[in-house]
Amino acid sequence: MATDKAGLVVTAHPGDFVWRAGGAIALHAGLGYRMKIVCLSFGERGESQGAWRQEGMTLAECKRQRQSEAEKAAEILGAEIEFFDAGDYPLRLTDAMLDRLIDIYRDVKPSFVLSHSKSDPYNVDHPEAVRFSNEARIIAQAAGHKPEDKPVYSAPQVFMFEPHQPEQCGFVPDRILNISSVWDIKRRAFEQLPAQKHLWDYYERVALNRGMQGGRNSGKPMTHGEAYQSTYPEAVEVMG
Amino acid sequence: MATDKAGLVVTAHPGDFVWRAGGAIALHAGLGYRMKIVCLSFGERGESQGAWRQEGMTLAECKRQRQSEAEKAAEILGAEIEFFDAGDYPLRLTDAMLDRLIDIYRDVKPSFVLSHSKSDPYNVDHPEAVRFSNEARIIAQAAGHKPEDKPVYSAPQVFMFEPHQPEQCGFVPDRILNISSVWDIKRRAFEQLPAQKHLWDYYERVALNRGMQGGRNSGKPMTHGEAYQSTYPEAVEVMG
Amino acid sequence: MATDKAGLVVTAHPGDFVWRAGGAIALHAGLGYRMKIVCLSFGERGESQGAWRQEGMTLAECKRQRQSEAEKAAEILGAEIEFFDAGDYPLRLTDAMLDRLIDIYRDVKPSFVLSHSKSDPYNVDHPEAVRFSNEARIIAQAAGHKPEDKPVYSAPQVFMFEPHQPEQCGFVPDRILNISSVWDIKRRAFEQLPAQKHLWDYYERVALNRGMQGGRNSGKPMTHGEAYQSTYPEAVEVMG
Amino acid sequence: MATDKAGLVVTAHPGDFVWRAGGAIALHAGLGYRMKIVCLSFGERGESQGAWRQEGMTLAECKRQRQSEAEKAAEILGAEIEFFDAGDYPLRLTDAMLDRLIDIYRDVKPSFVLSHSKSDPYNVDHPEAVRFSNEARIIAQAAGHKPEDKPVYSAPQVFMFEPHQPEQCGFVPDRILNISSVWDIKRRAFEQLPAQKHLWDYYERVALNRGMQGGRNSGKPMTHGEAYQSTYPEAVEVMG
Amino acid sequence: MATDKAGLVVTAHPGDFVWRAGGAIALHAGLGYRMKIVCLSFGERGESQGAWRQEGMTLAECKRQRQSEAEKAAEILGAEIEFFDAGDYPLRLTDAMLDRLIDIYRDVKPSFVLSHSKSDPYNVDHPEAVRFSNEARIIAQAAGHKPEDKPVYSAPQVFMFEPHQPEQCGFVPDRILNISSVWDIKRRAFEQLPAQKHLWDYYERVALNRGMQGGRNSGKPMTHGEAYQSTYPEAVEVMG
Amino acid sequence: MATDKAGLVVTAHPGDFVWRAGGAIALHAGLGYRMKIVCLSFGERGESQGAWRQEGMTLAECKRQRQSEAEKAAEILGAEIEFFDAGDYPLRLTDAMLDRLIDIYRDVKPSFVLSHSKSDPYNVDHPEAVRFSNEARIIAQAAGHKPEDKPVYSAPQVFMFEPHQPEQCGFVPDRILNISSVWDIKRRAFEQLPAQKHLWDYYERVALNRGMQGGRNSGKPMTHGEAYQSTYPEAVEVMG
Repeated sequence: MATDKAGLVVTAHPGDFVWRAGGAIALHAGLGYRMKIVCLSFGERGESQGAWRQEGMTLAECKRQRQSEAEKAAEILGAEIEFFDAGDYPLRLTDAMLDRLIDIYRDVKPSFVLSHSKSDPYNVDHPEAVRFSNEARIIAQAAGHKPEDKPVYSAPQVFMFEPHQPEQCGFVPDRILNISSVWDIKRRAFEQLPAQKHLWDYYERVALNRGMQGGRNSGKPMTHGEAYQSTYPEAVEVMG
Repeated sequence: MATDKAGLVVTAHPGDFVWRAGGAIALHAGLGYRMKIVCLSFGERGESQGAWRQEGMTLAECKRQRQSEAEKAAEILGAEIEFFDAGDYPLRLTDAMLDRLIDIYRDVKPSFVLSHSKSDPYNVDHPEAVRFSNEARIIAQAAGHKPEDKPVYSAPQVFMFEPHQPEQCGFVPDRILNISSVWDIKRRAFEQLPAQKHLWDYYERVALNRGMQGGRNSGKPMTHGEAYQSTYPEAVEVMG
Repeated sequence: MATDKAGLVVTAHPGDFVWRAGGAIALHAGLGYRMKIVCLSFGERGESQGAWRQEGMTLAECKRQRQSEAEKAAEILGAEIEFFDAGDYPLRLTDAMLDRLIDIYRDVKPSFVLSHSKSDPYNVDHPEAVRFSNEARIIAQAAGHKPEDKPVYSAPQVFMFEPHQPEQCGFVPDRILNISSVWDIKRRAFEQLPAQKHLWDYYERVALNRGMQGGRNSGKPMTHGEAYQSTYPEAVEVMG
Repeated sequence: MATDKAGLVVTAHPGDFVWRAGGAIALHAGLGYRMKIVCLSFGERGESQGAWRQEGMTLAECKRQRQSEAEKAAEILGAEIEFFDAGDYPLRLTDAMLDRLIDIYRDVKPSFVLSHSKSDPYNVDHPEAVRFSNEARIIAQAAGHKPEDKPVYSAPQVFMFEPHQPEQCGFVPDRILNISSVWDIKRRAFEQLPAQKHLWDYYERVALNRGMQGGRNSGKPMTHGEAYQSTYPEAVEVMG
Repeated sequence: MATDKAGLVVTAHPGDFVWRAGGAIALHAGLGYRMKIVCLSFGERGESQGAWRQEGMTLAECKRQRQSEAEKAAEILGAEIEFFDAGDYPLRLTDAMLDRLIDIYRDVKPSFVLSHSKSDPYNVDHPEAVRFSNEARIIAQAAGHKPEDKPVYSAPQVFMFEPHQPEQCGFVPDRILNISSVWDIKRRAFEQLPAQKHLWDYYERVALNRGMQGGRNSGKPMTHGEAYQSTYPEAVEVMG
Repeated sequence: MATDKAGLVVTAHPGDFVWRAGGAIALHAGLGYRMKIVCLSFGERGESQGAWRQEGMTLAECKRQRQSEAEKAAEILGAEIEFFDAGDYPLRLTDAMLDRLIDIYRDVKPSFVLSHSKSDPYNVDHPEAVRFSNEARIIAQAAGHKPEDKPVYSAPQVFMFEPHQPEQCGFVPDRILNISSVWDIKRRAFEQLPAQKHLWDYYERVALNRGMQGGRNSGKPMTHGEAYQSTYPEAVEVMG
């Protein structure tokens, strides 16, 4: 199972990598890929309703709690995680963060990237996260960016994962990943996010229905699936 | 190289399988796939300008000439070919032809189908050909269609090949197939179509530019490419 | 609860009005609307896999079984049902059927129509059904069509219901109907379709997730929902 | 002002060439173009509400009245008119009509064609008319169609004119034609259609607002305009 | 007529709330809604051609004049108005303005918001205004934004109003609001904007034509209308 | 050939005006237009792979080399060139640069502008360049922007030139400019960019294929073409 391949996941908030890409992370980690998550914020203002109902909650404490949960979820999925602490609602990304993400692209050399859909009328941070991720992906190619790095880097495919209301976000999946074998791991990662317990069943239903669609498209059984949309054409050696 | 896989190509006119899918046909034939071309017409009225400049040309003679050329091209590419003789400009497809194509789907059991883009403002036969091909693909799944067949059939992915003016046809490729290894075969198939000699160089340039785009997207060299657009999401076991 | 309003549902196959619009039918029937279903075929060839596994099955027997199931489902939902027996895979609609559907539009005077999405790459009957339904809707307005009718008819809004893989069909919902109060009725209608038992849970999950989306959009709780896309702008007297 | 140029207009009903293209017809007729209108029906069933309110109206009489009005309107605009009498609501176009329209394309050799938008959810005849017009335009190019014609024909640009509710029809204009100099002629043509008097002011307002938009886009004054959308790219010798 | 409902209007320039949403404002004000306009600039640089033709005009004087006109128009329509003085051509929105708009959302608790279309190739301020308005709408939901507010707030529907050239802006209306009863009020508000007198008749024609379209879609008469496009699906209890 | 017309070209990097618009520049320069190129960066970081392979290369030296090449190419094409030195990968445009570009619009008074497509998933600088160019174009109209200028300026049409992978950028050409007469000049401009020699043949093939498409659309021969997409409708006095 040894491979030198890697995957990179760039999300606005902790929940996003769990609900939307947890299966892909666990699956590839299990195949020996280095999986790295860049989590741009802790979701401390906009995705922590539960925390804010606690008496005496502060921003610092809220961030600490969410970071701890996200780290546990990443560990269960088998991934490294790095936080950019950029704030949320809205994300405020800096040049220093861009520079750091470019370094990560060059270091990790991912064969694929997972991030948000380009449009999301329910959320201002999601489109900003994928814009930022794509900017770093492209600049990492520039020979004149830190030329002393002598980078060996080829820009990877970017797969957009499923937003909460896909049709409203212009999301049209072209890949359904079979996550049946790692479903129990993904579900355990859910359980690290008690504040969003109302979403556990929702995303289990999403996984079951995407699985059934995957099976319908391939003619082969799939119990749980995750839907993705590619950004670039694939260069292929065979059609199917 | 033995495989029991197969591919099906459905085109309105002979030129289409040569210019647009000749690389894919030769490549998969070389890999041992059964490759079958269904050529719905001979292009006798609309794509035979050269023939009609010959003195005393008749429709029957024009069809005979184009059939002979198309057979030679298919042979070079390594494919079977079957003509439906449906007429061109416009195609006039019948229920009997639909029934025959359904039988072919069930018999060939293709793992992929290649056909036209859904829209083409320059050509009325191209969209009609892919509509017809998709109708057969779907009906072949119906348990109540010739139930005595007891068909074992799973509906395959359909890749649309590149039209003459892709942007005007809503064509957005998501696959670039590396046809470098079979380019010389595709080029030899071109030469069976002397009446459209003005297109030989055009489609060589298309292949070179698609190849360069393929290399740019993958980071690996590709000298000649063919562009395709998928119709359905792919069920996949790994992301990249 | 008395009203003189009515709704019309036009579907290709029996399953469609149950999975996709069963909640709307039951809800409006309960509000006193006359609800009429026009079911264009029995789904006898393409949506009766179970039946065709029975020994000695014939087309006539298959149609009889499916009709019986569909009638029971319609009764549970509280709707009238009329079958056009147009065949399926593919639907073959005639001028006489068009004439009949125009008469139904003029007679029922629906305040809304429910039918399929305009595009569905998995099914050739669904787009044909909605095209046919819209053609009848428009011709019913023509003063010169059976002028002796002296029709009093105003063309209604058409809502497209949710296809099996919405993103692949260009389906973007703009209405989420709260069907919480009639969910148990819809679920009982499911149970009349034993041949498609694998879809019962699938569409229960769809209802639960659409319900959660509905609640998220309105801020008011909704346990079960059905998604629809309107065809025409609404003339309104107030914005919200 | 002498020119050997020509324009062809293909409409489903008489009102269409008046409301939507009357300015273009009058303008080019005035410039010496041969302008030919092919009017596929008399609008006798669907666009003759006024006529059907007359006591004892028959289909034959209704067609006679509408034909007479349309001929007067065409005369005022300076155009030839030919009726195909294909019926309306719905149009029923035959192979013989297709053959006739191909002949007209080859005979008139239009430098441009004006017809309907490709989509119109309010009308089934409009999209069918433009589909038919484009089919004839393309087949007229086929060397093997009536090869004895030895046709000298180059397929012209097709401009779609403005439908009644442009945004619902996917209509995005890329030309605004200045019809200020012929507005009075277009308005006089309106007056030949007394049954649709409620549309006279509507389309005068459309002309005034399109004129104002035209002036805004060019920086030069335009009092009345007509909006069009091109189907094909233009080959040009200069940019502007 | 007493209601505790409210509506919020966010526009780039003063003219926008008059031409595009004046009917909705007057109508809901008349129904007892609290109507609040946030006008981000005075249109002092880009929409004050008349003012700049006055001798000795200064930016401060121009802003003063436009503010006075806008206040009179708002008063006639029955709305509160608040200016953000963000500058125009281009708008330069700050974090403090964002914070203020979030407060307004939480305070007004609008049941609907009216703002610009997302795209407008003729104007850089319009898309920026709606982007900003939507950002505030979303952040107002964040439990961690000023948690001491203990906000009771549910994010409202956002209706985009009609831009000057709707088809060029991707604007597809799905609501036509009947403003017949308040047309005279809207027209009086026009007259507070003497510098843009050339637009009075233009927008009266828009209102008349939208009214006619509204009547055509509902079958009920409407003399004047305003067109809107919703951003989110509606949760509904009945279909129509 | 004397004219007082002018054209403006706004590009992110030097290669862009050569590959994508070199024919239009040379053609109009030859017709006597003042042609002005605004080149926002030197492409020093992202489009200078060759330079960065040289021993001891520095950013300053790289910029100097690329500037020298770009000036030679502009001279061959017959155009003025002005560099904004905004940096590349990413472009960082300032208010002062915006102010300068507005001045250029008012001074040059172009009858057309050439710039990038609005979307390009391969490049972050291209969409930013056209956004910036359009912002300046619009603000140049504002009477209150430097009112002391008393500007006489009418906002011109903007043509987007062809990106490297047009279908991935939503590029749909509506103009194919005949550059046959200036092809040799464009090719000589290519040769000033030795670092991107691999693109010389690529863009020669693009020119040949666009030429063939141009000829196919007009029926008149064209050996070399350049494809463009307009941003605004054209006000026209005749249809074709």
